[in-house]
Amino acid sequence: MTNATPTSIEKEDDFGFGTQIRKSPYFDATVRWGAKGFSVYNHMYIPRDFGDPVQNFWNLVNDAILCDVAAERQVEITGPDAAKFMQTLTPRDLSEMAVGQCKYVLITNQDGGILNDPILLRLAENHFWISLADTDILLWAQGVAVHAGMDVSIGEPDVSPLQLQGPKSGEVMKKLFGESIMDLRYYWLRELELDGIPLIVSRTGWSSELGYELYLRDGTRGDELWEKIMAAGESFGLKPGHTSTIRRIEGGMLSYHADADINTNPYEIGMDRLVNLDMDADFIGKAALKRIRDNGVSRKEVGLRIEMAPLKKPNTRFWPLTKDGKTVGKVTSAVYSPRLDQNIALAMVATELSEIGTTLEIPSESGPVKAIVVEKPFFDPKKQKATSS
Amino acid sequence: MTNATPTSIEKEDDFGFGTQIRKSPYFDATVRWGAKGFSVYNHMYIPRDFGDPVQNFWNLVNDAILCDVAAERQVEITGPDAAKFMQTLTPRDLSEMAVGQCKYVLITNQDGGILNDPILLRLAENHFWISLADTDILLWAQGVAVHAGMDVSIGEPDVSPLQLQGPKSGEVMKKLFGESIMDLRYYWLRELELDGIPLIVSRTGWSSELGYELYLRDGTRGDELWEKIMAAGESFGLKPGHTSTIRRIEGGMLSYHADADINTNPYEIGMDRLVNLDMDADFIGKAALKRIRDNGVSRKEVGLRIEMAPLKKPNTRFWPLTKDGKTVGKVTSAVYSPRLDQNIALAMVATELSEIGTTLEIPSESGPVKAIVVEKPFFDPKKQKATSS
Repeated sequence: MTNATPTSIEKEDDFGFGTQIRKSPYFDATVRWGAKGFSVYNHMYIPRDFGDPVQNFWNLVNDAILCDVAAERQVEITGPDAAKFMQTLTPRDLSEMAVGQCKYVLITNQDGGILNDPILLRLAENHFWISLADTDILLWAQGVAVHAGMDVSIGEPDVSPLQLQGPKSGEVMKKLFGESIMDLRYYWLRELELDGIPLIVSRTGWSSELGYELYLRDGTRGDELWEKIMAAGESFGLKPGHTSTIRRIEGGMLSYHADADINTNPYEIGMDRLVNLDMDADFIGKAALKRIRDNGVSRKEVGLRIEMAPLKKPNTRFWPLTKDGKTVGKVTSAVYSPRLDQNIALAMVATELSEIGTTLEIPSESGPVKAIVVEKPFFDPKKQKATSS
Repeated sequence: MTNATPTSIEKEDDFGFGTQIRKSPYFDATVRWGAKGFSVYNHMYIPRDFGDPVQNFWNLVNDAILCDVAAERQVEITGPDAAKFMQTLTPRDLSEMAVGQCKYVLITNQDGGILNDPILLRLAENHFWISLADTDILLWAQGVAVHAGMDVSIGEPDVSPLQLQGPKSGEVMKKLFGESIMDLRYYWLRELELDGIPLIVSRTGWSSELGYELYLRDGTRGDELWEKIMAAGESFGLKPGHTSTIRRIEGGMLSYHADADINTNPYEIGMDRLVNLDMDADFIGKAALKRIRDNGVSRKEVGLRIEMAPLKKPNTRFWPLTKDGKTVGKVTSAVYSPRLDQNIALAMVATELSEIGTTLEIPSESGPVKAIVVEKPFFDPKKQKATSS
């Protein structure tokens, strides 16, 4: 990384425990703009606190926010066999994926377990970026390649994404890139420059709102890019922010490690549409996923409404779910939605208890709390906010 | 994980942003015993602050400390081809590795880049644990296995290590396990129970002091194990603590991501002894490492003495190293050692400037700071503290 500055040796308030966790090219900018707390994602700090998460939610759903998601590292796959190799990594059929298109995909291991749920970007016929959730898919892909007998190169390019999300994000983008950006369709990408700063821009994001991701291709220019976007957004109410747990649960979007992990398969999370067992390609996990499809799954991800006083913050442990005193699942992500005035959650429960309307319980010190299986997403079920512009 | 408790739903001061980062089986115990700050390592919280890092250092070098290192996740390799497969993962010759032995190894990719520097434990002829630094080697190993054509199983067992380190650690172990534990030699392991709690105990650690690691094999019993050890250690001055940056830099020990990464090879860090190019086994990276050995390396890891006022905390950025105004390397880990009364550091510099006595400079706002290449380790060069008992 190129973040070393002559002055840092004398900074006393420098954040962090050492150099083992990377700082994003936007790190200093986010601190300057009010970041108060960071989590760690793909071995990199990610801002998770700009004061009030509820205000961050309203900023996102009413106007727009800019989020440092450089921690969504890219795995770059190139070489003559890149497309063929990429198809072995995912159960989703990529044969119709055009150059310039993005796809939400799952990466599975030989047991059909989910290793990551990234956005895949196709930059050229044999040029892909896997825009990662929080696991080292770089190592997975390089490991698979060792004995695969295919001609591919796999590495981590100097690419650091930002997310610009919210109903006003289109206006901000128009100001930055001109009217033509309005032609960029949902889940497509474009190569652009902003005053000479090299970018890939896509209409994607982790918010269920209209939104864009800007993939910076030169880490030395992070500060400059951040400031240009904030300046362009000022008149539209753009605020610095972080990915919103409230909005993503409202949208029924998964957070890897929380709602899915290596022991979760695509059918359990209702992602059947991301698994194409009929294609010829022999992707990793195909046999296992066929067995799972044929045998059915014993647990399923559901939406829950939790009937108690508003949660003060998301759960940080997997709460047990019970029925008649027996453990039948776990709450994976819970939060209070101020818009819905409800505690909403994603949970993994026994299949026979996954029907809408089923009443379950969460044990607590003051007695069981009622949790009712409900439809998800909780808000904007047709995802119209993200897909229309 | 089994950390869900009936009361947690009502806890307002619960630590963390959500469930995406795991809590160790010792998490509650460390909070109870004074942990004030956590980092994230292998997707899990790891305590990094019990108040004063200098006091933690003195506790370690004078008495003993107990550290939650459950974040050092284990990759378990079993099956008829486990030994053969394990040898493909590391350039270190394992042919003489006995059952019951541990080895410090490097895991390299096809370019000879370092993916991890774990401790390897051999529990049986075809049963290994890779005790990880901070990368998803579980995914690497599973990835390599996809097309390897070997009969192996690779997973993450329910194992959570603790480190008991310091000159008094032997006394604490004797009180816990009886006199016979004194026969456990440096880098060997033993299967033991403590009041029915299943453990693997090894004489290893990340401190350069006498020390032990206790690998808990049942995550539900973390709290119980922690309390038993603390009780046994009370009369010997045992304190809760965290791995000491001061002591590990004094000992010249690497921290992955800080001092080495995927773009670092074993020769650059002076780990030639961990690479056996003459064995028959065709481990991953062998051809690349042969080329690197034959061609030599352009940069080397060195020890530095930095001549300035005592650093208040470790560097959190890679400081540039210059010679005659030209950048010639970077400081990877720097800290003030109260015992040596010096600022000491590990750094990567151009090979021609790696000689002991070379004077380099670190640019700073108030002018260049002098950094002199010195012998490492900085303390106890023969590692007598860790190896003798």
